[in-house]
Amino acid sequence: MRYATLDNGTPDGRLAIVSEDLATCRPLPGMTLQAMLDGAEMPPPGPEQPFDPARCLSPLPRAYQFLDGSAYVNHVELVRRARGAQMPDSFWHDPLMYQGGSDGFLPPTAPIRGARDWGMDFEAEVAVITGPVPMGATPAQAHDAIRLVMLCNDISLRALIPDELAKGFGFVQSKPACAFSPLAVDPRALPGWDGGHLSGTIRVDLNGAPFGRADAGVDMTFDFPTLIAHAAKTRALAAGTIIGSGTVSNRDKDGGPGKPVAQGGRGYSCIAEQRMVETIMSGEPRTPFLGAGDRVRIWMEDDAGLSLFGTIDQSVEALT
Amino acid sequence: MRYATLDNGTPDGRLAIVSEDLATCRPLPGMTLQAMLDGAEMPPPGPEQPFDPARCLSPLPRAYQFLDGSAYVNHVELVRRARGAQMPDSFWHDPLMYQGGSDGFLPPTAPIRGARDWGMDFEAEVAVITGPVPMGATPAQAHDAIRLVMLCNDISLRALIPDELAKGFGFVQSKPACAFSPLAVDPRALPGWDGGHLSGTIRVDLNGAPFGRADAGVDMTFDFPTLIAHAAKTRALAAGTIIGSGTVSNRDKDGGPGKPVAQGGRGYSCIAEQRMVETIMSGEPRTPFLGAGDRVRIWMEDDAGLSLFGTIDQSVEALT
Repeated sequence: MRYATLDNGTPDGRLAIVSEDLATCRPLPGMTLQAMLDGAEMPPPGPEQPFDPARCLSPLPRAYQFLDGSAYVNHVELVRRARGAQMPDSFWHDPLMYQGGSDGFLPPTAPIRGARDWGMDFEAEVAVITGPVPMGATPAQAHDAIRLVMLCNDISLRALIPDELAKGFGFVQSKPACAFSPLAVDPRALPGWDGGHLSGTIRVDLNGAPFGRADAGVDMTFDFPTLIAHAAKTRALAAGTIIGSGTVSNRDKDGGPGKPVAQGGRGYSCIAEQRMVETIMSGEPRTPFLGAGDRVRIWMEDDAGLSLFGTIDQSVEALT
Repeated sequence: MRYATLDNGTPDGRLAIVSEDLATCRPLPGMTLQAMLDGAEMPPPGPEQPFDPARCLSPLPRAYQFLDGSAYVNHVELVRRARGAQMPDSFWHDPLMYQGGSDGFLPPTAPIRGARDWGMDFEAEVAVITGPVPMGATPAQAHDAIRLVMLCNDISLRALIPDELAKGFGFVQSKPACAFSPLAVDPRALPGWDGGHLSGTIRVDLNGAPFGRADAGVDMTFDFPTLIAHAAKTRALAAGTIIGSGTVSNRDKDGGPGKPVAQGGRGYSCIAEQRMVETIMSGEPRTPFLGAGDRVRIWMEDDAGLSLFGTIDQSVEALT
C-alpha cells in the first residue's frame, strides 16, 4: 500500500491511498497518517481522483519524533574530513544518531528558504516510520515495528554546523525543517526491501543534471532495525517515530569516495561530499552550496522506471 | 487559566480546566491541549469533578517539539566541571540548547524506569509551551507566542552522557522520556511571571527531605523569549513547541555554587550539581544517583502556599 497526505488546510492533512502508477489516489475521509499509526479504524476510501504531488504535504506533516542516523559511515568520514574533524573508530560499530526537529516538515515540493551564507545543502536519505517500540527492544522487535518507508531531504546548513556542534549539544539551528517524499510505502510493496535495507539507486538531480546515483542498499553499516534498537535503548518510541538512514553514500571499488557523476562515478547525495572530493582531487571545492533558484530533485525508481515514492522537488528561495 | 490533561485511554488524553485551589476540574469533552493550541473551538466544559493528579498525563502527553535550553549557565559550568569538561566563554552570550525527545512524556506521577548503572538523575526546570513562531522571530515576537508555563523533570542518565556527547550529535540515549507538572498555566495567572522569567522557589524534595530551593527567577542568563528566538533562527516553530529553561541553578552570594539545603544553602535542582559541590568540599561525591525506591518531588508554591502547577512526584523502578 502507498500512502500520501493531501493538503486540506489542516495541520495533519488528509490521508490518501495512491495507485501503483502514482496516477490516481483515493482520499480517506477524516483520516490522517498519525491516526492510522495510532490504530484508528480506517474509513472506506472516497472516490478516485487524479494524484497531484504538488498537493501533497509530508506523509506525516508533523511528527512526534524524527531521529536521524548516520548509517552510511563513508558519508560521516568524508564530511568530518571536510571540516577538519577526526572520526573515531567507534563510529563503525556504535551508530551515530541525532534527535531532529519534527514539528513541521516541508511539503515535498515546497521551497527551501534560507540565507545564502548559511551554506544550504541537501542530504538524500531513506527513512522509515515505526509503530510503537518498547524500551529495550531488540533489532528483531524493531524490525517488526517498521510500518512505512519513504525518502528524506535532510536539509543542512553547513556554515552553521561547526560552531553549533562545538557547543556539544547537537543540531538545532543548523538542521532546519526537512522534507520527505510524497509517498510513504508499505515495505511489502517495495521490491528492494530486505527487512533492513532498501536496495536501489537513490537519484539526486541538481538543476536538472544528475548529481547522485548511489545505491541505498550498499555501504549501510547499520540497518534500520539496528538504528531503531539504538534509539529505544533507554526509552520507548511512539507510533509515528521517523528514523532516517543518514546521507546515502557509497564507497568506490578501491575503498575511496568515488567520483562525481559527470566524471563517470556514482556521485553524491549531498553537496558537502562532492566538495570534499573536489578538494582531494583539485585542492579546492568547486561546487557551491545552494543559492537562490537552485533546484534539487530526489527520487527512486523500480526496474521498470516507475517512481517508488514520488519526487522530492525543491527550489531554493534565498532570504538575503 | 490552569489546564491539565486527564488519562482517558487515548494517546492525547482529555483536556480539563482546573480550579485555582487544584481541588476540582471540569473536563472539556473531546478536547486536547494540542487541539486548543492549534486553534480548535473550545467546547463548553463538562460538570465539575474532583481533581486527581494521579489521573493526569503530561499536559501535552506527546508533543511535536521539545527544545531544552541551558539558561542557568551556573548549572552548565558546574556539570561540565563535574565531568572534567571546559565551558567556553561564549556560553554566557550564545544559548546552549538541545533537541529533546517529545514522542511520549512520562505522566507527572509515573515511575522513572532505568538501570542503576545509567546514573539516573532528575533536573528541575521551568518550561513554556508556545503557539506558532515564525522563522526569524524576534524576542518580542517570541514573547507574544508564549501560551502556557509548566515545570519539567528532565531526566538525565549521567553515566551515558559523556560517551554520547563525545560523538558530537547531542543526546539520544542519555535523555530518556522526561516528565512535566500536572498543570500547564496561563502566564497571566502566574504572579511571578514577568514575561521572560518565572520568579519563585522551585522546590525539589528527594526521599522526603528538601534537596533544592533555588529561585527560578534568579541567574537565568537567557530568558524564554531569547531561548525561543534562538530556536526559531532558521525555522518556524509549530504550535505546541515546548521550550525548557534547563536546570534551575543559583549562584551563592560569593559567586560560588552555594551549599546543600542540609547545610543552610538553597541546594540544587539535580543530583549532579550536589555531587560536584561535595567533590569540591570533601574530595568526593557522597550523594548517589537515583536507585530503586528513590522518590523525587518537584513543585512551586505561591506566597500563600498554594501549589502553582501541582507536583511532579516520581519514584524510581530499577530495571537491573
